[in-house]
Amino acid sequence: MSKIDKVVLAYSGGLDTSVIVRWLQDTYGCEVVTFTADIGQGEEVEPARAKAEALGVKEIYIDDLREEFVRDYVFPMFRANTIYEGEYLLGTSIARPLIAKRLIEIANETGADAISHGATGKGNDQVRFELGAYALKPGIQVIAPWREWDLNSREKLMEYCAQHNIPVDFSGKKKKSPYSMDANLLHISYEGGVLEEPWAEAEEDMWRWSVSPEAAPDKATYITLQFENGDPVAIDGERMSPATLLETLNKLGGANGIGRLDIVENRYVGMKSRGCYETPGGTILLKAHRAIESITLDREVAHLKDELMPRYAKLIYNGYWWSPERRMLQAAIDESQSVVNGEVRLKLYKGSVTAVGRRSADSLFDERIATFEDDAGAYDQKDAEGFIKLNALRLRIAAGKGRDLI
Amino acid sequence: MSKIDKVVLAYSGGLDTSVIVRWLQDTYGCEVVTFTADIGQGEEVEPARAKAEALGVKEIYIDDLREEFVRDYVFPMFRANTIYEGEYLLGTSIARPLIAKRLIEIANETGADAISHGATGKGNDQVRFELGAYALKPGIQVIAPWREWDLNSREKLMEYCAQHNIPVDFSGKKKKSPYSMDANLLHISYEGGVLEEPWAEAEEDMWRWSVSPEAAPDKATYITLQFENGDPVAIDGERMSPATLLETLNKLGGANGIGRLDIVENRYVGMKSRGCYETPGGTILLKAHRAIESITLDREVAHLKDELMPRYAKLIYNGYWWSPERRMLQAAIDESQSVVNGEVRLKLYKGSVTAVGRRSADSLFDERIATFEDDAGAYDQKDAEGFIKLNALRLRIAAGKGRDLI
Amino acid sequence: MSKIDKVVLAYSGGLDTSVIVRWLQDTYGCEVVTFTADIGQGEEVEPARAKAEALGVKEIYIDDLREEFVRDYVFPMFRANTIYEGEYLLGTSIARPLIAKRLIEIANETGADAISHGATGKGNDQVRFELGAYALKPGIQVIAPWREWDLNSREKLMEYCAQHNIPVDFSGKKKKSPYSMDANLLHISYEGGVLEEPWAEAEEDMWRWSVSPEAAPDKATYITLQFENGDPVAIDGERMSPATLLETLNKLGGANGIGRLDIVENRYVGMKSRGCYETPGGTILLKAHRAIESITLDREVAHLKDELMPRYAKLIYNGYWWSPERRMLQAAIDESQSVVNGEVRLKLYKGSVTAVGRRSADSLFDERIATFEDDAGAYDQKDAEGFIKLNALRLRIAAGKGRDLI
Amino acid sequence: MSKIDKVVLAYSGGLDTSVIVRWLQDTYGCEVVTFTADIGQGEEVEPARAKAEALGVKEIYIDDLREEFVRDYVFPMFRANTIYEGEYLLGTSIARPLIAKRLIEIANETGADAISHGATGKGNDQVRFELGAYALKPGIQVIAPWREWDLNSREKLMEYCAQHNIPVDFSGKKKKSPYSMDANLLHISYEGGVLEEPWAEAEEDMWRWSVSPEAAPDKATYITLQFENGDPVAIDGERMSPATLLETLNKLGGANGIGRLDIVENRYVGMKSRGCYETPGGTILLKAHRAIESITLDREVAHLKDELMPRYAKLIYNGYWWSPERRMLQAAIDESQSVVNGEVRLKLYKGSVTAVGRRSADSLFDERIATFEDDAGAYDQKDAEGFIKLNALRLRIAAGKGRDLI
Repeated sequence: MSKIDKVVLAYSGGLDTSVIVRWLQDTYGCEVVTFTADIGQGEEVEPARAKAEALGVKEIYIDDLREEFVRDYVFPMFRANTIYEGEYLLGTSIARPLIAKRLIEIANETGADAISHGATGKGNDQVRFELGAYALKPGIQVIAPWREWDLNSREKLMEYCAQHNIPVDFSGKKKKSPYSMDANLLHISYEGGVLEEPWAEAEEDMWRWSVSPEAAPDKATYITLQFENGDPVAIDGERMSPATLLETLNKLGGANGIGRLDIVENRYVGMKSRGCYETPGGTILLKAHRAIESITLDREVAHLKDELMPRYAKLIYNGYWWSPERRMLQAAIDESQSVVNGEVRLKLYKGSVTAVGRRSADSLFDERIATFEDDAGAYDQKDAEGFIKLNALRLRIAAGKGRDLI
Repeated sequence: MSKIDKVVLAYSGGLDTSVIVRWLQDTYGCEVVTFTADIGQGEEVEPARAKAEALGVKEIYIDDLREEFVRDYVFPMFRANTIYEGEYLLGTSIARPLIAKRLIEIANETGADAISHGATGKGNDQVRFELGAYALKPGIQVIAPWREWDLNSREKLMEYCAQHNIPVDFSGKKKKSPYSMDANLLHISYEGGVLEEPWAEAEEDMWRWSVSPEAAPDKATYITLQFENGDPVAIDGERMSPATLLETLNKLGGANGIGRLDIVENRYVGMKSRGCYETPGGTILLKAHRAIESITLDREVAHLKDELMPRYAKLIYNGYWWSPERRMLQAAIDESQSVVNGEVRLKLYKGSVTAVGRRSADSLFDERIATFEDDAGAYDQKDAEGFIKLNALRLRIAAGKGRDLI
Repeated sequence: MSKIDKVVLAYSGGLDTSVIVRWLQDTYGCEVVTFTADIGQGEEVEPARAKAEALGVKEIYIDDLREEFVRDYVFPMFRANTIYEGEYLLGTSIARPLIAKRLIEIANETGADAISHGATGKGNDQVRFELGAYALKPGIQVIAPWREWDLNSREKLMEYCAQHNIPVDFSGKKKKSPYSMDANLLHISYEGGVLEEPWAEAEEDMWRWSVSPEAAPDKATYITLQFENGDPVAIDGERMSPATLLETLNKLGGANGIGRLDIVENRYVGMKSRGCYETPGGTILLKAHRAIESITLDREVAHLKDELMPRYAKLIYNGYWWSPERRMLQAAIDESQSVVNGEVRLKLYKGSVTAVGRRSADSLFDERIATFEDDAGAYDQKDAEGFIKLNALRLRIAAGKGRDLI
Repeated sequence: MSKIDKVVLAYSGGLDTSVIVRWLQDTYGCEVVTFTADIGQGEEVEPARAKAEALGVKEIYIDDLREEFVRDYVFPMFRANTIYEGEYLLGTSIARPLIAKRLIEIANETGADAISHGATGKGNDQVRFELGAYALKPGIQVIAPWREWDLNSREKLMEYCAQHNIPVDFSGKKKKSPYSMDANLLHISYEGGVLEEPWAEAEEDMWRWSVSPEAAPDKATYITLQFENGDPVAIDGERMSPATLLETLNKLGGANGIGRLDIVENRYVGMKSRGCYETPGGTILLKAHRAIESITLDREVAHLKDELMPRYAKLIYNGYWWSPERRMLQAAIDESQSVVNGEVRLKLYKGSVTAVGRRSADSLFDERIATFEDDAGAYDQKDAEGFIKLNALRLRIAAGKGRDLI
């Protein structure tokens, strides 16, 4: 075991991370600095202060990171229409690099030699926290209590609390949820419990952010989303800060039953895992961003983005936000977005979001050329013959020499 | 103008292609062979016989290609979870290579030296027909009347009919639709008319295959779809032929308002184009195929498929089904599908389709390892430390040498 | 035929483009502006002035573009280690966008409504010139005489000269070469003649820029090449301008028999073509650039670059330098190059170039960790076990469930 | 420490693996089965039998795997023109999966519950052995002594030998090389020693398989290599087995100074490493394979192969030969090779190999179309105009709407 003097802990104020505070103090004989961030998880962060104080913590950081989170992490990711494995909008993945960055900044400010977190040894989050930390401060030490201790059951944890005078109301929840959850401004996730059986349908009362499509209004809601440089800036003409905008989309989406997802995904550590997600605002945003790109992006740029996207998504999922390869891909993606300006009109209805209109001063849609009516010579149909003939040439030569494709 | 003796025409029996029959006879002084296929467009094909006869056609081919279409084109494409530009399920694109193949087969049988079709010089379909034809019979000649003649308005066409005694009821439609439409077992598409303004919402009465989500039942429909080797084989336990299965999915989807799409897409010939599509069965199938793959495919295989998919989609969209590069990609895709067996349970409700359960004898989901509960040593959490440390090594070395990622 | 008032012609001063001047004047009744560039082809450009004047040209542009060519086209391309089809260093391809750009600039300056060039209708160069021109000035008209006229044999050309009083010494060559050649500071190319038989070895006296390996010195030449931000800046410590540096490398390479290439390549217009190339400096530069990247680039950045490269190469080969997708890729490539600084030591010997040493203040090579000797704890070998275990997990689960890989 | 009854060891007969035999017996109290393979490393394998017997080993496997190695591993890899990081021909990487497979087969035959190898905890080989083993037998245990013991210096090893009566002549080498080496029919590699300084040139007496280019004959050697289905089958008309053919190419290459490589590469475990390699036959084979593909492969197939190759190379380098994603890529690669038949003529001269001729009954090279002379109408140059116009359309529309690319 390494000698640690001071450790910065990602502290939620909940029972598990409160146990970690005490365990770190006891096990490593070190000082613990707590860091609690509001990234839109929907719970008060200020109560964490009193709890940390009660545990003897002297340096307590409580930050509101909502705007930074949406502006510098969520929006850049959506510029790429990022989806992991065809379905997942990466709500958990994208928050981790911000937490990792703040942990390291606080370690630098407080002179800590280690960081710690409450993620388990089976999941992706440990990887995301630690890769970020190592990339930003190579000499940092990492303590991952769930990989070290033997408190691997609820009973043992409660016993530890009793022995160490940790108030049980630190659990922070009226009633223990059967699910493992994670929330931030982009999404809320559910894992574990009955979800561990992939054939079982998620129960309706699990979902917290959205009404069921059945319970959503019988009448569609229409909104207009405005984009500048690939990022949304206004809803129905009202400009909003990034966090406010995403929060507003969450409400609109949640009220219309939009953004629920139920998948089995492949974790970086090698196993398959069932997860349910609610991403109401993100689901709307993705649809809208594709729609505004559809009229403003060049075809080959759009296709190149689509081909790079799975790789970019994998990289974020696996925890490589803070990496030179992510920067390289981001440079390409961002280069494409200066023309992604304009408006998208969307219909929200009982679980689905549809783009019904799109317009832009940067539109490349050319009605003169696209029209089925007489185009007054804007497009010479005879060009198509040469186009086809030369594109077919290699195939014709091959067929002429006996290559058979059937 | 080349000397043509006999030409095989893709003949719908409608007004436009009837004009083409006469125009080919007059302009090229050649014999016309008509070919009419049932690929599930939902119109009778047999009436085309009398019309062709009335136009003096002696060799008339009328084929029911529905099973071949779904089995050999639609299903192989869905094995790749194919989507063009993030949205389009390629309903029109995937039917063209089959038509091209039959045109060439008929040309070979009848000794024709040319083929002809009714696609315009602005669209993708001309490319798909002709690339296919050239790839399968390099010496074939192609006549594309819309690129040659000057009948480029409804008025001129009607005038031509009057002059050449072509019965106007050949138009085949009670009332002329304001849209350019194409239909087959996979989808129906709409272009033109008011859709040429991308900001304008499609009118409700345009849609033909699906009820609006608002008009769909207030109660969800649940179905179970069974897969073998990556292809669907049964619905709710009832085995069906490929065409019957897709037709059944279309009905289920259409009744629940599923599969409407409104996009601006990039054509191969270089322009942007607004299109609306109804793909009820395909939308369900895509969701289900991803779900069954999610538990049966290896992670890296799934990711490789995702990275290859945009390229495969582009190739089909652009008309390169009959190409060696499509075969090469298909070989890779098909190699992955022998394990894609099992069942997916789906919820269909007012425009959305959700996978709510999936199970398979070939499942790679391992509850023992995935569980949040005690896993009895199935997974050693300590392995994660080395995994992270070595994955971080290159980043730590770089940071240690002063590379800054923020 | 369009009405053209003034056309800017890419004019070499040779016989073919001199014929084009007269043909344009006669055929289009338009004024011709000539543009002759020194891009390092190794022939005087100033003589083109008198020839143009003799043909009645009033606006004559003669530019020395060597530095711009190497700095803004060759070097950015080499940052990507660009090779087409595994072999070709794109010497001709990379010069075309610069010519296209200057043609358009001159058209803008002189108020010309068209450009013209002497490339044939079978090759890639017509595509590169015209795509560039259209992308930079969409309303420009293009006249490609070789696609229009019927002077498609040497005899007819000479006859045309005789009829139109074009002095035959405009052919600019003592003796007509049997090869079609193109040269600039990056390379010289040979096509046609006996090379049209791919089994025939190129004759020794064809090659112009390099001695044969057999005739090269019996003793190796060692040089050190210094890089800054991915571009070479000095040879053996002596800083040079881009053009001077490439010219120096050409001499060093040529003297050592380096850079000859004999391939069959796939043209964009659909046919295969045999080409021989001499790229002495470029061959050295590619080797050196890879070597300096090998110690300064992060692994994943290097791999991403390698995966993007074929696409970037294809894009340049096909003529899409002036495209948004090239800019997007360039943004990614350039983002990676700020750390590509340092020195490479190279051995040049009888046709081969070998990197024998590389060093850099930005090196990521860490001897402490790489060493086979005791590393004093810099690397914990036990980490490897967890790394392997988790990387193997998906494979073990699959094998455990009966998946067989043999 | 796990309970192990019997372990199969990859045994070279050298000092290190002899120490491992004894160490396994002592540390795990288990029976050791030795496995020694001839994969063309150039040393007798039979002497390993007596040494193993002297160490008390009862089950001794000595296999000649040369043909299997070249036929089932080397040749399939060369079908993809595989190169890691632009330079490395993967000589070590490609032998590991074969060894892993045999270790598991022997474990199955002998009822062993573990395998062991002599690879260090810093390198790629441990990963390749173990990933393969886990993929083929998920319950197998792996003992990697270099990650466990403390014999991490030559002195400690010798001391251990003395204590345990291991004859020192087991070191198998007259004089201890300063390099860490690995050899098989594809290559020999050198690491460590003075190579740990990337600026230092490798010493001439390090190289073992090739003469220096300077010492090679002053006259070039010409050979003709014949391919069937992408694999070489004959040299100068003489058919040979895979291993014999590669061995013959090694002799030809080595005698002409061909195939030396000096690079810094990125290991999977995260560090950069200097390596020198001699791959005489492989270097010739790669050049020849590209040449025969150049006339027989379709353009888009060739480009797709080039884009997939870096990924395929990385996968082999990292140890994932026995993986479903490798099979998927191999299916695509192999699909392309049935037409790769014909002959390549090569010039070998003082370190360089040049393709000087290629011919094939499956050639797609079409002289009628490629010719600079009159092609009698085989290609209509006017087609090029439409081809360019439509390829330019998206760029022209964009430029017309004000997009600026300079």
